[in-house]
Order: sequence, then structure tokens, then C-alpha cells
Amino acid sequence: MTHDDAQGFFATRSALEAEKYLELDYTFECVGDPRVAAAHLCSEQSTAQWKRVGVNEDFRPTFAARVVEFDAEPSPLGFSYAVPGAPSGAVHRCRAVIAHPHANFGPKLPNLLSAVAGEGMFFAPGIPIVRLDDIRFPASFLSAFAGPQFGVRGLREQLQAFDRPIFFGVIKPNIGVPAREFAELAYEGWCGGLDIAKDDEMLADAPWSPISARSAALGDARVRASAATGARKMYLANITDEVDRLVPLHDLVVANGAGAVMVNALPVGLSAIRMLRAHARVPIVSHFPMIAGFGRLPHYGVSSVVFTRLQRLAGCDVIIMPGLGDRMMTPAAEVLANVRACLDEMGDILPSLPVPGGSDSAATLEGVYRALGTVDFGFVPGRGVFGHPDGPAAGARSIRVEWERIAAAGARN
Amino acid sequence: MTHDDAQGFFATRSALEAEKYLELDYTFECVGDPRVAAAHLCSEQSTAQWKRVGVNEDFRPTFAARVVEFDAEPSPLGFSYAVPGAPSGAVHRCRAVIAHPHANFGPKLPNLLSAVAGEGMFFAPGIPIVRLDDIRFPASFLSAFAGPQFGVRGLREQLQAFDRPIFFGVIKPNIGVPAREFAELAYEGWCGGLDIAKDDEMLADAPWSPISARSAALGDARVRASAATGARKMYLANITDEVDRLVPLHDLVVANGAGAVMVNALPVGLSAIRMLRAHARVPIVSHFPMIAGFGRLPHYGVSSVVFTRLQRLAGCDVIIMPGLGDRMMTPAAEVLANVRACLDEMGDILPSLPVPGGSDSAATLEGVYRALGTVDFGFVPGRGVFGHPDGPAAGARSIRVEWERIAAAGARN
Repeated sequence: MTHDDAQGFFATRSALEAEKYLELDYTFECVGDPRVAAAHLCSEQSTAQWKRVGVNEDFRPTFAARVVEFDAEPSPLGFSYAVPGAPSGAVHRCRAVIAHPHANFGPKLPNLLSAVAGEGMFFAPGIPIVRLDDIRFPASFLSAFAGPQFGVRGLREQLQAFDRPIFFGVIKPNIGVPAREFAELAYEGWCGGLDIAKDDEMLADAPWSPISARSAALGDARVRASAATGARKMYLANITDEVDRLVPLHDLVVANGAGAVMVNALPVGLSAIRMLRAHARVPIVSHFPMIAGFGRLPHYGVSSVVFTRLQRLAGCDVIIMPGLGDRMMTPAAEVLANVRACLDEMGDILPSLPVPGGSDSAATLEGVYRALGTVDFGFVPGRGVFGHPDGPAAGARSIRVEWERIAAAGARN
Repeated sequence: MTHDDAQGFFATRSALEAEKYLELDYTFECVGDPRVAAAHLCSEQSTAQWKRVGVNEDFRPTFAARVVEFDAEPSPLGFSYAVPGAPSGAVHRCRAVIAHPHANFGPKLPNLLSAVAGEGMFFAPGIPIVRLDDIRFPASFLSAFAGPQFGVRGLREQLQAFDRPIFFGVIKPNIGVPAREFAELAYEGWCGGLDIAKDDEMLADAPWSPISARSAALGDARVRASAATGARKMYLANITDEVDRLVPLHDLVVANGAGAVMVNALPVGLSAIRMLRAHARVPIVSHFPMIAGFGRLPHYGVSSVVFTRLQRLAGCDVIIMPGLGDRMMTPAAEVLANVRACLDEMGDILPSLPVPGGSDSAATLEGVYRALGTVDFGFVPGRGVFGHPDGPAAGARSIRVEWERIAAAGARN
């Protein structure tokens, strides 16, 4: 690409019709002229060959992705990560905001991912290290998506739980307990104060715990727990399965008394969630397997924030994400950015309840609450409830007691 | 976890019933006792809490993932990549083969991914850097999958193309050309010698090129090209879209004359491909967007080989993958491992045709053929055909001429 050719992939924001473009925040490390590299990043994700041979035309004005902000600085130490096959030469670290015309593909999640995080992003000449940090959608794109059906407010109304976090518990042991005994664990957790007892993300419809039997047992236990406590209780069934089984499993578990369904977002696919959303009669909860595979290294891959925004767009009422604490190896700033991605204004799309999880217990509740600065979150211990030395009821109670203490201390201030 | 607890997550291979286990090749970098870290990697992906409180039981013998091979060596320079929030201390680099009981979840792709590349893999205590390098399936697991419907032999029979590579061409410009003119480009490519003219992975059902009109125009052009050349020709339509549209779009494009359908595997989801496979009447071709996001860095994430195996399992007759050449930044060994993952014995699962792609032209054909050492591959130029200075027919012809030269030279030796 010549320098003149590259110029066709740059624009000023004011020259573009904002409603026609997604905005993408990339950082990248390149060899060669950084502006040419940025042009390649645009070209490869849009119109790489912008004219036919022998025809006087230029598709770039309508179809090209364009750089609207750009910085580059030399990186004397080279690439952040060694990549076999990377080009050699002086390295620059760059930041580019790219405006991508969404009519190139339309309001569809698989096509969006293919365009902004596909071959174009990862195979632009001269750019072995690249990361998609964030994405912004214009109203014209958002309006094609239904988003969450219930959102934070709808879930609170179903649970009649206001002005406080929502208390989830991951029933443990997650693997190995037969359905009836598994339901008894949940019953104890509910009686101790859980709002929502949930299947682990690895427990779905398994030969040794068929979801038909398990959801029936849990549905029954939920009714008993509600009667015993006088409070709304919810069973969250993990229906993660092949995509053609999501709708039938939704119907089965809801008929058996599940109040919400969980799917593992990337393993099932974001588009399958959107399909489920069109059918679902209960809240959809998504879980985070695989996302860290894309986003843990700060200079490569796709940030978890992008996936949080897409899960919300796909219609997840609740988004479980890596939270605070040593085990999760996730910077607090990233956790907070994901929480904001759930709750911040997003056109007419309802907020999703953020559930930052990971080795939580009564001992971590205040820290999570203070860090988030809002009661609009879910708290999701597993072993912190079901591994409690005095049993699940005591484990759940320890969390509710701790919350009462925090709330009372807040009221006194 | 105590050292005694950790011991419950180790086993000798001969003590395990091989048919009940997947084998997973992980490498990881950890702080702390490497054997305890390996046990955590098993525990977190299977039965993290292996007994109920107050019950005398142990789920590990049936449900635990177990280390069956293990090496560890000190890493004096620390972690390969800096991870914010990583634990500090002396670092070991480890290699673990883990046997994972597949009945924990059953023969389902989303549940497999959740178990072996999910929260357990990426959030095992002490292990910020981890990579899944490969996966092996016992016959008892494979038998639940149909695999490719046509495979390499079936595709060759449809095209009547034997003892040579299959010649694909990605119609370019990929974005911006209206359906009728787009079909004319394909026509020229077919007449020049392409077997298969295909949509780019970013061109699917777009507002400015509806797939109904495009597939009708291409279907018509294909008939004309077959008549003009006396050879079988195929249009490969990219039906990447929301998962609930895959089956209807398959039916539409096949009715219009498409001979095969393409889906972008990770953006659509592997499970959606398996769903499509159950319905498809033509070969399914998968493309590689996003896979490099998981696998480019050699010590982190999920290797492309794992995804190739899963695409074959899901039923892809053809797998387009990053190939040789500078632009693809993919080590030759990885390309060859992916080619073998397509072609090697895999129980009763048919082989998939590997298509290692990336900036190919007549100039790269011999190198690709020599490196692969087989004619069982697809060759997929884009600009190398459609950006040829003398037009698409000349571009396609240049490749067929080059192949004739290579084959004649081989026959003389």
C-alpha cells in the first residue's frame, strides 16, 4: 500500500455520518510505517481491494473502515510479546480509533465479530500484536437489538429484592451429587438467605444428573424454600448445551420451576443467546468461560469489556464475569469497566445485572460493594456458601448477616 | 489444597479406563508448588469441592480430571508474559497431560469447551499463564459425532477433481460490488480454471448485496461457466449470520445454485455448525476469524489445532485456516499440525479438506504443495486471482498453468 493509498483509510470524525459507523478502540504494535499499518488494519477489515481491475471506481468512501484518531510512539524494546513469524524491524506502539461502516454487514453478531475481531484484525500486514479494547454503537445499530427482556429492575421485581445486592449461590459440590441431594443443598442455601441457587457453569444436562430430574427436584425444593421463608426464591438452571437444544431445555426447566436460565456465552455463542432471547420467558444469565482466553494479556486479543457489551446486546439480563480477588487475576479497573458496561446508558437497551464472581464469601462482600459503589450487582459465592463448615444454610446466612451489618453501618453514616 | 489433597488429582494412565477420558495437553506457568498447581488445574475443571460438608464421600475417583503426565522446570526469568494481578514468587514452567472424564458433561461441544477451556483452565490458583495445546478423544466420545458428511473424497467426487489440489478463489473486491457484477467476476474466475468461487468471510447477507440476489446471480453464472468449460464448478456461499438463520439461508442458497455453504466457525459457534450439519445437503466450509485471538502467542490461550479438531468433529467438510507466508504470522509447524488434524485418522470421522490460506497466488503454489506434501488441500487466493493485472480469468489460469508445470515436473522425476 502506498502512502497515498493509506490516506484513503483516514478521515476526520466530522466528515463521517456518525450513525453509519461503529467506533472501535484498537491498540497495536507494528513494524514499518505506523500510518500504513493503521490503514492496513482498516483495509483488511473492510474493502481490501477497493476496485475491480480495469474499472475506474473506488469503494472506500462508502465501505472503508477509517482511522479517526491515531497516536504512535516508538517502542525501543520491541514487541510486548514474542510472536513466531512476526516481522522484524523497528517497532511502534499505536492507538487507533477506527470508524467501521456497519452496513457492510448489518446488525448481526457473527458478522460483527467477523468484521471487527476477525481475519482483518489479526492478519493486517506488519501488525502481529493487536487488541480490540472497546466498541461503541450508534443508535441506528442498537435499535435492531432487543437487549435484555427483564434487566436489573425486572429481576428485582421478580425477587422482590430492592436496594441491596442479589445473593446468588453456586451449588457445590458442582459435579457428582445426584439430583435429589443436590436440591437439598439448594434448599438449605435458600433457607439461609440466598435469592438464587444456581448450577455451576460446568453442570448442565449430564448423564449422571439429567437436567429433567434435577430441575424437577430443584423446582420442588424452591417451592418449599419459598414457603418456609416467605421470600421469593429462584432456581437458575444451566441449560448450556448444543444450540438446537437451548429452546427445548428452556421450556423443560421453566416448566419444572426454574426461574431463570444460564448459558455459557462464548461456548454456546453470542448469537445463540440472541436466539434464546427471542423465545425466553425468564431471565437469561450468561457466564464467562473462554473470555479470559481472549483478554487476559493487556496488549493482545479482545478485551472482556467488548464481550460484556455484546452479551448485553444479545439479551443477557445477568452477566457473570471475573470479579475481584487474587484468584481471578483481573485488574480492578477491568472489573469496574465491565460493571459499567452492564449498567451505563446504551440507547434503549436495558441494563444487565453485573455479577463479578470468584472465590467470594462473607469476608469479601464489603470489599466488592465498596469497589463497585452500587447495590446493583449480584454476589455469587460457591464454596463460600456450600463449603461453609456449618453447612449451606449457615454459609448463606453469614452473607446476609454481613450485608445487614454493612447496610446498617451505611445508614448510621 | 494440601499435598495429600493434590495427590487425588494424579493417576497413572494404566489405572484409568481410557475410553472414559479425553486427554488434554496443557502447558502452564505457575507460582508455588507445581504439583499443587497442576492439581488445581484438574480440580477447577472438574470437581473443585469433592465432598459435601459433613458427608463422608469423595467424588474424585469418578469425576476428577487427573494428571497422567507431568514435567516442571524452574523459569528463572519469570512468566513469559506480564499479567496484571498475577501472583508473585518463583515461577515454574510445566507440561501436564490431563485425563478428563467426558461423562462429566457428555458429547456436546459447548460443554466440552466450558470444561476444558473455561473458568477451570484460566482461573486455577497460581496459574496466570496457561495454554491448551491439543486434545485427544476416545472412540466412545467420537462415536456421538457425525463429522463431515462428504469429506475430502465426497468433495472431489462432486467436482470430479482428483489427484490435485482444489482451486478456490475469494471473489474480490469482497465488499462493494453489486450482485450481478460480482457474479461476472466469479464467472471469469471459473472460466480461468477455479473449481470453487467463494464469498469472502466478511461478505454474507448484506443490505447492499442481499444473499438471495447474489446467490441467484452466482448460481446462474456457475451454470454458464460449467457449460463454457465442460467442467464442474461450485459457488460457495457465505451464510454466516445469526444462528437461527443458518438453516433458512442454507436452503435459500442451495435452491439458488450454491454447491456449498460457508460459516465463520467461532463467530457463529461450533455448536451452530453441528446443528447446520444435521440439516445440510451440501458441503460445509468453515473459516477462521477469531481463532488467532486465542492462539497466536505460543504460551497462552488455545492452540488453533484444538479448534481445527473441533471444526472437523462439528462436521466441516472443508476447513480454511491461516496458512504459510509472511502475512499470516503462523509458524509452518502449526500450519502442518492443522493440516494433519484435518487428514489424520479420527475414528470413523471423515477427513476434512484443509485450506491453508493467506495472500496466495501462482507464485506461492509450489511452496505450499511442497510444504504440505500432499495434494489433499485447497488453495485459496483472493487478490492473487481477482486482483491479477489481466483480470480474474488470467489470474485463475496462472494458477492452473502453474499446477500443470508442478505436476509435469513431478511426473518427470
